[in-house]
Amino acid sequence: MQPSTIGHDVTDGVLVVTLNRPDHLNAFTPTMADELEETFVEVNDDDSIRAVVVTGAGRAFCAGMDLSSEGNVFGLDESQSPTLADMQDLSSPELRRIRDTGGRVTLAIHDCRKPVIAAINGAAVGIGATMTLAMDARLMSSKARFGLVFGRLGIVPEAASTWFLPRIVGMSKALDLVYRADILDSAATAEAGLADAVHAPESLLDTALELADAWTKGRSPVATALTRQMMRRNSALDHPRDAHRIDSLAMFYTSVGDGAEGVAAFTEKRDPQFRGRASDLPAFYDEWLHDDR
Amino acid sequence: MQPSTIGHDVTDGVLVVTLNRPDHLNAFTPTMADELEETFVEVNDDDSIRAVVVTGAGRAFCAGMDLSSEGNVFGLDESQSPTLADMQDLSSPELRRIRDTGGRVTLAIHDCRKPVIAAINGAAVGIGATMTLAMDARLMSSKARFGLVFGRLGIVPEAASTWFLPRIVGMSKALDLVYRADILDSAATAEAGLADAVHAPESLLDTALELADAWTKGRSPVATALTRQMMRRNSALDHPRDAHRIDSLAMFYTSVGDGAEGVAAFTEKRDPQFRGRASDLPAFYDEWLHDDR
Amino acid sequence: MQPSTIGHDVTDGVLVVTLNRPDHLNAFTPTMADELEETFVEVNDDDSIRAVVVTGAGRAFCAGMDLSSEGNVFGLDESQSPTLADMQDLSSPELRRIRDTGGRVTLAIHDCRKPVIAAINGAAVGIGATMTLAMDARLMSSKARFGLVFGRLGIVPEAASTWFLPRIVGMSKALDLVYRADILDSAATAEAGLADAVHAPESLLDTALELADAWTKGRSPVATALTRQMMRRNSALDHPRDAHRIDSLAMFYTSVGDGAEGVAAFTEKRDPQFRGRASDLPAFYDEWLHDDR
Repeated sequence: MQPSTIGHDVTDGVLVVTLNRPDHLNAFTPTMADELEETFVEVNDDDSIRAVVVTGAGRAFCAGMDLSSEGNVFGLDESQSPTLADMQDLSSPELRRIRDTGGRVTLAIHDCRKPVIAAINGAAVGIGATMTLAMDARLMSSKARFGLVFGRLGIVPEAASTWFLPRIVGMSKALDLVYRADILDSAATAEAGLADAVHAPESLLDTALELADAWTKGRSPVATALTRQMMRRNSALDHPRDAHRIDSLAMFYTSVGDGAEGVAAFTEKRDPQFRGRASDLPAFYDEWLHDDR
Repeated sequence: MQPSTIGHDVTDGVLVVTLNRPDHLNAFTPTMADELEETFVEVNDDDSIRAVVVTGAGRAFCAGMDLSSEGNVFGLDESQSPTLADMQDLSSPELRRIRDTGGRVTLAIHDCRKPVIAAINGAAVGIGATMTLAMDARLMSSKARFGLVFGRLGIVPEAASTWFLPRIVGMSKALDLVYRADILDSAATAEAGLADAVHAPESLLDTALELADAWTKGRSPVATALTRQMMRRNSALDHPRDAHRIDSLAMFYTSVGDGAEGVAAFTEKRDPQFRGRASDLPAFYDEWLHDDR
Repeated sequence: MQPSTIGHDVTDGVLVVTLNRPDHLNAFTPTMADELEETFVEVNDDDSIRAVVVTGAGRAFCAGMDLSSEGNVFGLDESQSPTLADMQDLSSPELRRIRDTGGRVTLAIHDCRKPVIAAINGAAVGIGATMTLAMDARLMSSKARFGLVFGRLGIVPEAASTWFLPRIVGMSKALDLVYRADILDSAATAEAGLADAVHAPESLLDTALELADAWTKGRSPVATALTRQMMRRNSALDHPRDAHRIDSLAMFYTSVGDGAEGVAAFTEKRDPQFRGRASDLPAFYDEWLHDDR
């Protein structure tokens, strides 16, 4: 089924996902959440894609949750409030209605087997900002803005942003950003450590595609997928010994696979021809990522 | 009961806590620990307070543990040394005597429902330095100094500072600071990433009050309390999925509460009138913060 | 037994470990892994040593895994691939052959009771780079280079580097470094936050020895050992309450030991004479570090 709120374009192995409701500044809807979540799951099985770039159509990146629907986004009242215990089985259909939609998207981005780059072309506000925190890099157009504005609306930062944000900018800056709840221009966003630099609007997408190439072109998609999850999962563990367990399995697996070719090519001073496929990862990978979501 | 070692002053919804033993450079005593711990617990139930600023009376912020009492602060000898297993139930009265007093204070600051700002007016040494690491921002007077001096005294950094410090300055800088155990001037403290900037002594307190306003004035105290704990707790979890569980509950709760008013006010281009009270948080909050302390 | 791939030299209480296969650019072999692991275990029992500096003989620091042996480093094929469950008991002799050799070294460095400083004199590539991430500081010669090149060889970063790296440079920089897999010159390495500064080649080792002195000379080896592990272990825990448990025990133990002397010397304005020995740590230390490795 063709997505209705986002566009898919493939350029030489890079999937460009365009948030595509330009008449509504690409505001986020439950349908967009579904389509994005699906995109980041399906790309794992598509070996023709090595990286993903996310950008916005028109002048905005994503202006936040679409507030045009009346009432709260859950359509429930307080008497139906769930408990922490209710949230243990996230696969329960009962709970789907009260699961934060932004979080469904960022968890899919976090679990993705391909690097994901945000090309922030215009205003990124609310979920438009937090969805990019789960991505691997944020490139800003000089016309872009970035706003963790939740505090001004009486709500909380979502999309697991309180997990991602301090890992990127440290705890003091993270607290200051969410308490202030300001909309930052591109220079202030880069200065805060949230973006790499400020780019000219007309070259933003090309710069993002060049970064995707620098990260993934001619590389083993298996090693890239494993490396992405090792960085994201190992670093959150209590002890490096647990990282060492995963390292040993991943190093064993890649050494007998693409690594053998990589070392041979290096020794023979030629380009490697990797044959591994990110759609086909070792058994421990699923065990490692297994969750009740 | 009136505290004897600290002062309480309220200015337009901001509680200014003044460490108040100026003849002893505000050195930390067991009584001061009790009074600070109590302050950060009681402020949770006082809906007239939206933020806390901590500063020192006279020329020091806090010169560290008061060493004037003879012997070690525990009044015990090595034969009474407890084990790791003994420490599991921190509520045991038996263990209160060997619990680090600084840690009792920083855990209360960590659990607080209101943002806490350190206005470091003079020397902050030992527990005077580590207590500020649990706060949300550190503002330094140009006359202030900051010293994690434990290594020079043959003791260890305390007050859970080894949990807080690397989250603020990264692991390499954190190790260097505690190994060197130097007393830094205000410029070096800011350069190390421990303070936001250096402020003129006469404007320090006003700057701290302005920051408290920028963070909390006109905001939902419920959203602020939830956001503070989400940032501090979610970021320490092993997987963003666990943050997503809390996000979903907190977003549900705020959406049907202050968030409905916040969105309405935004749509109607008027200031919101939030009614939520930080003293009255949802059921999951206590379950989430439940501990055996 | 004298090590064959590394040198040991002691200068005034500092052990200088020299990676010593200069004809092979100090390339890493299973024997070097064994000898390094042994070094960082044995130094814990040697009270004449207060810190360790690691450097390389000749023009390289360590050019990575020695690829001269044919085939993969494990000598196994894919049919013998272990599972995540197999990795639970790392002490199993069965598993030793598939344990990442670099990780055995970095876990020993992580668990060490003495501060460890990398004096990176030349190329540090692959395991030559990742082994330094477990050390407490990295000093770079202007002639040195630093390469997390795994991605170019179709393999994954190892030696628990995905646990250490984001703690040093943050998540965004960490991902960029491993995806790009470039070899950085010394200025770029310092700019990335991986090294403190760039030093003249002829003064590198002296600078490392001076840093070792600044960190450990005249200090309590017991407080240093406890502080090192508190910073590395407490900061990875889910809640500062768990750090507080360790703090309380460590503060109790040092207060009745070297801390009593430290406070007395401070009060009497004289240099302290610490008597604690890092080889003799309190009972909770082993319980705390206990693992199945």
